[in-house]
Amino acid sequence: MAVAVAMAVTDIATRTYNHNWRHDPIVRSLLDTDFYKLLMLQMIRHLYADVQVTFQLINRTKTVRLADDIDEAELRAQLDHARTVRFAKKELIWLAGNSFYGQQRMFAPDFIDWLSGFQLPEYELRAVDGQYELRFEGPWTHTTMWEIPALTIINELRARAAMRDRGRFALDVLYARAKAKLWEKVERLQQLPDLVLSDFGTRRRHGFLWQRWCVEALKEGLGSRFIGTSNVLLAMDNDLEAIGTNAHELPMVLGALADGDDALRRAPYDVLDQWRRHYGGNLLIVLPDAFGTASFLRDAPDWVADWTGFRPDSAPPIEGGEAILDWWRARGRDPRQKLLILSDGMDVESIEAAYRHFHGRVRLSFGWGTNLTNDFRGCDPQDAVGLKPVSLVVKVAEANGRPAVKLSDNPAKATGNPEAIARYLRVFGSDGHVRSDVLV
Amino acid sequence: MAVAVAMAVTDIATRTYNHNWRHDPIVRSLLDTDFYKLLMLQMIRHLYADVQVTFQLINRTKTVRLADDIDEAELRAQLDHARTVRFAKKELIWLAGNSFYGQQRMFAPDFIDWLSGFQLPEYELRAVDGQYELRFEGPWTHTTMWEIPALTIINELRARAAMRDRGRFALDVLYARAKAKLWEKVERLQQLPDLVLSDFGTRRRHGFLWQRWCVEALKEGLGSRFIGTSNVLLAMDNDLEAIGTNAHELPMVLGALADGDDALRRAPYDVLDQWRRHYGGNLLIVLPDAFGTASFLRDAPDWVADWTGFRPDSAPPIEGGEAILDWWRARGRDPRQKLLILSDGMDVESIEAAYRHFHGRVRLSFGWGTNLTNDFRGCDPQDAVGLKPVSLVVKVAEANGRPAVKLSDNPAKATGNPEAIARYLRVFGSDGHVRSDVLV
Repeated sequence: MAVAVAMAVTDIATRTYNHNWRHDPIVRSLLDTDFYKLLMLQMIRHLYADVQVTFQLINRTKTVRLADDIDEAELRAQLDHARTVRFAKKELIWLAGNSFYGQQRMFAPDFIDWLSGFQLPEYELRAVDGQYELRFEGPWTHTTMWEIPALTIINELRARAAMRDRGRFALDVLYARAKAKLWEKVERLQQLPDLVLSDFGTRRRHGFLWQRWCVEALKEGLGSRFIGTSNVLLAMDNDLEAIGTNAHELPMVLGALADGDDALRRAPYDVLDQWRRHYGGNLLIVLPDAFGTASFLRDAPDWVADWTGFRPDSAPPIEGGEAILDWWRARGRDPRQKLLILSDGMDVESIEAAYRHFHGRVRLSFGWGTNLTNDFRGCDPQDAVGLKPVSLVVKVAEANGRPAVKLSDNPAKATGNPEAIARYLRVFGSDGHVRSDVLV
Repeated sequence: MAVAVAMAVTDIATRTYNHNWRHDPIVRSLLDTDFYKLLMLQMIRHLYADVQVTFQLINRTKTVRLADDIDEAELRAQLDHARTVRFAKKELIWLAGNSFYGQQRMFAPDFIDWLSGFQLPEYELRAVDGQYELRFEGPWTHTTMWEIPALTIINELRARAAMRDRGRFALDVLYARAKAKLWEKVERLQQLPDLVLSDFGTRRRHGFLWQRWCVEALKEGLGSRFIGTSNVLLAMDNDLEAIGTNAHELPMVLGALADGDDALRRAPYDVLDQWRRHYGGNLLIVLPDAFGTASFLRDAPDWVADWTGFRPDSAPPIEGGEAILDWWRARGRDPRQKLLILSDGMDVESIEAAYRHFHGRVRLSFGWGTNLTNDFRGCDPQDAVGLKPVSLVVKVAEANGRPAVKLSDNPAKATGNPEAIARYLRVFGSDGHVRSDVLV
């Protein structure tokens, strides 16, 4: 670490080479997570301290046999190491003293104090039929924090395994090509004068150092058009805004806890009501698709239209965005005062298309994920499968022993047991659900 | 330097960035020179310790105004710094203890001892009409050693100036593109199973760290087909063979010292006679073109055909090589036992063409220079002129007050005053001289 501090840019190829001969921890900070986890955690601790939530790993890319690619002992060593990491003092001081979305003291002193004792809880891991069953059972206040570290560990171990036998200069050239490729994207994005973009690529990243390179490159290449990163550690280290609000786990858990269909139907709005009691302003972003966007909009109370913006996360960006613009207009709101955040599998082409389509008609912001931090297509002469991203998620499986469900607007992204999914489809309907392949 | 030692691969972009805010010496070792300088120096010290030789800088690329691009104070600071550098103990121990071309004790103990006190001599510098007049006057035993450091300093300062206003990530991407570009070349050269290639790129390199990257990349990428480097420091640091024998300065000085036309006509062979008394085996490489290859071959004594090989340096590689094969055959020698070294402005295309043309007909070896260590074509979005190599040489101007001349096979590469050139053309003729543009 002394070298990493002394040199502003670490030589990624050398470090990757070194991964092969010693244990090199992937998770080195509990801030190396998405900002929304901390915002949600503060609310969860406040309102749901007693709720038990099980998260589990889901690999949607069935053709990739993770347990064949990643050594179980190595995986355990990384997960165990992550459990030894604590929030550092300087990290907590920064969380307490920094402003987020223009707001001071976003995190209450008692929450910061509680974080100082935080430790990732235990995990259950076994290999079954070439896949890993990885589950986190326990209080929601703790299991929720495994989502990002579990994903970054598995993704980075997989990339390391794919590169294990490469020479040092072959690796250097691999990263050289990836850098050149990302910079071509930066040069295209420089052509969009009113672009507003942030990094959402932590969970699917190729590796920490590569994400850091990407984020710092965007900071230099896009200037003020690059507004920040969802990664709290990178935001702190680079004086960038930490970006993010809330995720599907909130309506999923509240849906699971709801007694009866009426309560289930109300759950997505109950979540928003609780959220607005905790946070305001730019944090009032609706994630409408947990159980389908069409039903969400149809049944939404009028105050939802007062929120700052929407983040459609599984509908095609232009059609999905237009549906929300229509809904704002139908509720008498001017879309030009509203914010649309597009973050589902975006890349330069879809960013350009959405930018041109919506420019001047709505405030537009992009969250750029997998195709920012894990795009090595065309960079690897060996075209290794292990360098292609997999569609890997850590999702709520149960809350207080009841099954949790996500429908989304794309049935390929649905999670939950078949019976529960059938019940949710009965309650919410399947208007507007369109199956499309999940690539990232 | 501590960081460079601790990390096997230095981050070139970061270092280049740093060049802008502090003095970063270019010449840090007197071994950072071409191997042939040391071989020639040992002979010069033995036979010509009293000869005074003036070297001077010649910029054949007149459109590039070096004095406008490079700050004079910076240039003086680098030249002055080079004069403070001495051979380090470990360097002299390596020169004494290493074998070169399979031969132990290539350098005599008294020569090694003399090197321990060596210092680069004074220089004269002034800017005239946008160009630098840079001259080194004094004993041949000292002025000869300025050739390579003077060239590397000017070339690297020029590149630094071109990159002065670049951002850190723009620089990182520039090098990323150059790495990817070089690796494409490596992948093409991997297709040539009997390739024999060495680095001759010190004098025209973009910078020391970049040359080091290129050399280490060739070592990994080409394995045993990459036989070594002309750069003595890089050879030592990477356990590579130091490659090189002799240069035009020997016949140029002996030509200048010759009394009368007959002596002048004999000078190219007198040099070889002296050389073979000092060195043997693979070091017996003829550089035939100082005053034109055709006249050299026509008048050569028979024992020249016993030498190991030829390095044609200014004729087109295939035609020039064929002329030498014809000459060997005419003298009753089998070219398949002989070595042809091609090193004039080679790049992948011309290496492939010559390889295919000569494969199986002669032992073939390539010296890859400018297009190895200074090819940023297509890598720079700003397409800066300062990142394109210039045809810069440091040549003998006078020996003991008499003008020195080089004709070469290409009149565009001729050096010397017009009267002297006219005399040399009268003595040697101009058979086979073909003008072509000098790009590198």
